Amino acid sequence: MSASIASLDTPAAIVDVPRMQHNIRRMQQRMDALGVRLRPHVKTSKCLPVIKAQLAAGACGVTVSTLKEAQYCFAEGICDVFYAVAIAPGKLTQALQLRRKGCQLSLLTDSLDAARAIVAFGQRHNERFDVWIEIDCDGHRSGLDLEDHSLLEVARVLSEGGMQLRGVMTHAGSSYELDTPEALQALAEQERNLCVNAAQRIRQAGFPCPEVSIGSTPTALSALNLEGVTEVRAGVYVFFDLVMHNVGICQAHELALSVLTTVIGHQKDKGWVITDAGWMAMSRDRGTQRQQRDFGYGQVCTETGDWIEGALLTGANQEHGIVALETAGGVDITARFPIGSRLRILPNHACATGAQFPDYHAVDAEGGVQLWSRLHGW
Amino acid sequence: MSASIASLDTPAAIVDVPRMQHNIRRMQQRMDALGVRLRPHVKTSKCLPVIKAQLAAGACGVTVSTLKEAQYCFAEGICDVFYAVAIAPGKLTQALQLRRKGCQLSLLTDSLDAARAIVAFGQRHNERFDVWIEIDCDGHRSGLDLEDHSLLEVARVLSEGGMQLRGVMTHAGSSYELDTPEALQALAEQERNLCVNAAQRIRQAGFPCPEVSIGSTPTALSALNLEGVTEVRAGVYVFFDLVMHNVGICQAHELALSVLTTVIGHQKDKGWVITDAGWMAMSRDRGTQRQQRDFGYGQVCTETGDWIEGALLTGANQEHGIVALETAGGVDITARFPIGSRLRILPNHACATGAQFPDYHAVDAEGGVQLWSRLHGW
Repeated sequence: MSASIASLDTPAAIVDVPRMQHNIRRMQQRMDALGVRLRPHVKTSKCLPVIKAQLAAGACGVTVSTLKEAQYCFAEGICDVFYAVAIAPGKLTQALQLRRKGCQLSLLTDSLDAARAIVAFGQRHNERFDVWIEIDCDGHRSGLDLEDHSLLEVARVLSEGGMQLRGVMTHAGSSYELDTPEALQALAEQERNLCVNAAQRIRQAGFPCPEVSIGSTPTALSALNLEGVTEVRAGVYVFFDLVMHNVGICQAHELALSVLTTVIGHQKDKGWVITDAGWMAMSRDRGTQRQQRDFGYGQVCTETGDWIEGALLTGANQEHGIVALETAGGVDITARFPIGSRLRILPNHACATGAQFPDYHAVDAEGGVQLWSRLHGW
Repeated sequence: MSASIASLDTPAAIVDVPRMQHNIRRMQQRMDALGVRLRPHVKTSKCLPVIKAQLAAGACGVTVSTLKEAQYCFAEGICDVFYAVAIAPGKLTQALQLRRKGCQLSLLTDSLDAARAIVAFGQRHNERFDVWIEIDCDGHRSGLDLEDHSLLEVARVLSEGGMQLRGVMTHAGSSYELDTPEALQALAEQERNLCVNAAQRIRQAGFPCPEVSIGSTPTALSALNLEGVTEVRAGVYVFFDLVMHNVGICQAHELALSVLTTVIGHQKDKGWVITDAGWMAMSRDRGTQRQQRDFGYGQVCTETGDWIEGALLTGANQEHGIVALETAGGVDITARFPIGSRLRILPNHACATGAQFPDYHAVDAEGGVQLWSRLHGW
């Protein structure tokens, strides 16, 4: 395995394919057992071989965070695409173009103004857009409250305006702040319950609402019951990361993304090892900063991926990383980590770290390495 | 001006070209007055039209943070390139290829082991590499102490090994933590003094050391005297950003990079405006977090670039930003920032934010917009 990884320039983003495939199976099997469809969020990988592996395992379609991701998937024959960010009216032209080419693109809104803009644009272009309404289940970010009087108004505007009201969706983004199974189960139930109730409210008012979509990786892996839910969206489970490890929903051996780096210097007096992976490679994400365990800019592993306990990337400049050992006493760091030797660093946040790279180096069970390109920008 | 910006999809990275040209002139004139060459660090922009503007204004060559930047510049006829990150032995093959094609690439080291690796590789390939020695002037990151006994050893290994010892360099990276002219002037003098003394030490030992290269944007703009220095390196001055504004070395009207975004929602009860620029657009950089003024993920401006006092991007998810007003009382945010309206957000850190985009939209004095592609990855 090292023979192939050894040929890579650093820094490089390494995907451990057997771990990724395990993660994909784990989530799909769980959703199958709970009787719901899985619609992976491709914003994590933005990478076709990863997305194809998710679809091959049983995913019903994809969730995207940008219209560029939608175009990328559709160009590869993936038609069932949910753009799960509230649509800006200025993006409707692009959405229309995708639909006219045959993409079954769904849009999202959580406001009357945007609903009216969708209807006006749809009527002008004789297009019956598929639209979902976003519900706020935890005060995290976007969405309408279950009790908000706008909820039924948005449903009415869309339905009476000739759009296809597909359903309601929510995202329990605050699950990233939790770290006990009990709290995660409770939030998963809250996410399910509020979204199912929002659908019921719309149906009782006489509007169609066939679908109920919920999801975040932590709640998807914690929910005990998904009654009334038709689809689950989740993204980061495909690679997992240190934030998810702190949340408590993955083990170290499930972390599938790491950054390969080379030792380029030492500051012996300080116990620092300098690497060629700084924040440009790791991203500036410090998601573990306020969690139970702060991993700095990442957990340091050997070149073959073995966790080096107490070795963290404690500092990062653009192309310099600083590795420090929690217990450096007695260790000769220049002998332990010589110039030119290699390490692998597990990131705080797989979505942010992946985005720093034009491609992944995908390593299979035999150590073979393939280059997988990924999307950048909008 | 708005007519052209109005046609852009969001999020988009906007470069205000007149501001950029002003910043380039400001730094070049200062270096000219102090009698030193300027070698801009292109890691900030990674963008050819920006680099060409710096060279046209009088820069002597470029500083790069990756060999990909070196290749990019050399492919466009820029030959004088200083790779200012300590070389990993595994990258010497790539460096050799560049030099064999005619690139005057300089390398950097701060260790005996790397110096020996350079010599061994150079001798094997009959290549007399140009090499600089890195000095630590402030304990910030890399470099040898002035008093370190390795300093003369590295000089000896390189010189006697047949390499071209070009000089010494240092970077006062801790200048980013300061915010008074007095402290900045003192650090600039410390940076100059230590690096000039390191050169003297090497010369007195009988080795050549013609060049003394120092620099960071804050110290370059604060130094009163650069006696003994031959070159200054600086990067972020070309765009500046909120971190530099907090350091006190630029004015608001000199901030040349911003992110154009669209309002996609509101949470009225919380006073939140939701935008389509989240951390994927702004980066996760929170460089102002520990400065005198914390700008969250960025300072919010109108579409035409006017600073909206007290409006910050206080939260960011991947493709969602949360704008909050410090004094929201009485403001109807849905009327003030309607769905579909546009804002511009000044970033904490121009290097990190720029890297999130495949290209800049460069806006000239007449409001014309040009697409400037930029480099991504390694």
